[in-house]
Amino acid sequence: MPQDTISPPLPDHAYDPLAAEPPYPYQELIGFRIVEWRENHAGVELPVATKHYNRHGLPHGGVLASLLDTSFGFASCWCPYPGRVRRAMTLSLTMNYVGQLKGDTMRATGWVTGGGRRSFFAAGKIEDDTGALLATASAAMRWRGNGGDPMGDPVAP
Amino acid sequence: MPQDTISPPLPDHAYDPLAAEPPYPYQELIGFRIVEWRENHAGVELPVATKHYNRHGLPHGGVLASLLDTSFGFASCWCPYPGRVRRAMTLSLTMNYVGQLKGDTMRATGWVTGGGRRSFFAAGKIEDDTGALLATASAAMRWRGNGGDPMGDPVAP
Amino acid sequence: MPQDTISPPLPDHAYDPLAAEPPYPYQELIGFRIVEWRENHAGVELPVATKHYNRHGLPHGGVLASLLDTSFGFASCWCPYPGRVRRAMTLSLTMNYVGQLKGDTMRATGWVTGGGRRSFFAAGKIEDDTGALLATASAAMRWRGNGGDPMGDPVAP
Amino acid sequence: MPQDTISPPLPDHAYDPLAAEPPYPYQELIGFRIVEWRENHAGVELPVATKHYNRHGLPHGGVLASLLDTSFGFASCWCPYPGRVRRAMTLSLTMNYVGQLKGDTMRATGWVTGGGRRSFFAAGKIEDDTGALLATASAAMRWRGNGGDPMGDPVAP
Repeated sequence: MPQDTISPPLPDHAYDPLAAEPPYPYQELIGFRIVEWRENHAGVELPVATKHYNRHGLPHGGVLASLLDTSFGFASCWCPYPGRVRRAMTLSLTMNYVGQLKGDTMRATGWVTGGGRRSFFAAGKIEDDTGALLATASAAMRWRGNGGDPMGDPVAP
Repeated sequence: MPQDTISPPLPDHAYDPLAAEPPYPYQELIGFRIVEWRENHAGVELPVATKHYNRHGLPHGGVLASLLDTSFGFASCWCPYPGRVRRAMTLSLTMNYVGQLKGDTMRATGWVTGGGRRSFFAAGKIEDDTGALLATASAAMRWRGNGGDPMGDPVAP
Repeated sequence: MPQDTISPPLPDHAYDPLAAEPPYPYQELIGFRIVEWRENHAGVELPVATKHYNRHGLPHGGVLASLLDTSFGFASCWCPYPGRVRRAMTLSLTMNYVGQLKGDTMRATGWVTGGGRRSFFAAGKIEDDTGALLATASAAMRWRGNGGDPMGDPVAP
Repeated sequence: MPQDTISPPLPDHAYDPLAAEPPYPYQELIGFRIVEWRENHAGVELPVATKHYNRHGLPHGGVLASLLDTSFGFASCWCPYPGRVRRAMTLSLTMNYVGQLKGDTMRATGWVTGGGRRSFFAAGKIEDDTGALLATASAAMRWRGNGGDPMGDPVAP
């Protein structure tokens, strides 16, 4: 797909970006799964296990930060064009640890709140399967490469 | 050691709180090590490995958040009394992702910036073994139990 | 109203806490007005004027931080009991400057997201009168005095 | 000064950017003064007055946010070239309200911690004239126009 295309081709509605996205190493280490992915929105789910526990026998704050940061990256980088990918990076991330886990599974939901072609913002929350609110978060982010363009960049060969 | 002790006993200088602190599950999962621990200060080291990589082949932002949050918890909870432990929790954590990894090992350093018997604050940074600054962070935290007292609480039996 | 009341009296529905709350000096300096106040929710409005401008001829980021921090304080401290007041303090505040002012008036909305008797959390946003989103924010806070109790403390004589 | 200059001219050491920078409206409203300005570093001072007081008779958190955000803007935008100016904007700002004012004057100090031609980071603190630490802060920022170039842009005519 040439870089100089002026009007982007129509998205391929049969294409599922999530299916094209293999789990990456840290995702496998922690054990989370991308369960929702659409424009400006992503959901990330984690069955909580002993391996996530901190010194107090509770999920480590870094686990929750990992889920929310991941949800922001996916929410912003949704790309419906086969063979194309959008990339972004987090500049700042703020976590608020609102409540404690009561259930067995955590679900992070992240969405893009605004921004432009250079930088943008995301917000999100983590709830567990009992509906308890565990954390809220926000981030300032910026695009990598042509990530600010809906068509992004070609997937590296 | 009775809870009603008015003057705390002298710390036992032969006692090493770090040696008394077994690695917890998330620590083993990520692979970091507490390498410095003294009053209001802690250092946490991580040899970077493929398992820490995100979608872009870089250490996931959640790994860096994990290291700094850990350094804040240890920095605040140093307790030189055998059989005693101090506990705290993070209310909010802000990460700033300043630069990229150039070396092989990350070192998070966290310190307490101020506060009192109820809530307190910490700040820190991550540098790699080439001296590159990867992140800065700050947190608002509060004590669990008698964590605000230098003698903390008895270790649970 | 005695401090040892076990069951709080019913709130006085004819009592308007907002009417009982005179503007404080900084409020008059900046020129904002509390326009909504109910349990866990507050709205703060500011007609933008030249005095709020920074070096770039835009409202200074500190003005937006002032509005959101104010909305968090009011949202958390709503107290329907005449002669009583609740007080809180901000531990950490994170602002995300999402977009630029297009209209003439800014409205900050703040709400409590969770927490307990010791510490709690708030989140909020600023929109202008054209509906443009200018900022989002979150905070970790804690109570002053008996602020964590719905009846708070007596107004100082 | 042509935009296509490859090597920038030497700075004019007789030129004082601070003297060339008139106070802007919000600066006059709050009453702060830029007292230090050099590459990557700025100091902002405020004699505390009743007009800065919140509902509790303490300086409003928004005042402290204003001082630190200002110090970050100046720290990043120092430009030793007459007739030139650098401009930046704050993406996210996190305040930690560490301690209470004991003196009469607040001094915010801000410095650039890292970054590049597109986005960068700053950190800072506020102390009073008794040496008490009142707040720490950090920010993710980005350049406006050619702010990422040491020569910036021409001052608008």
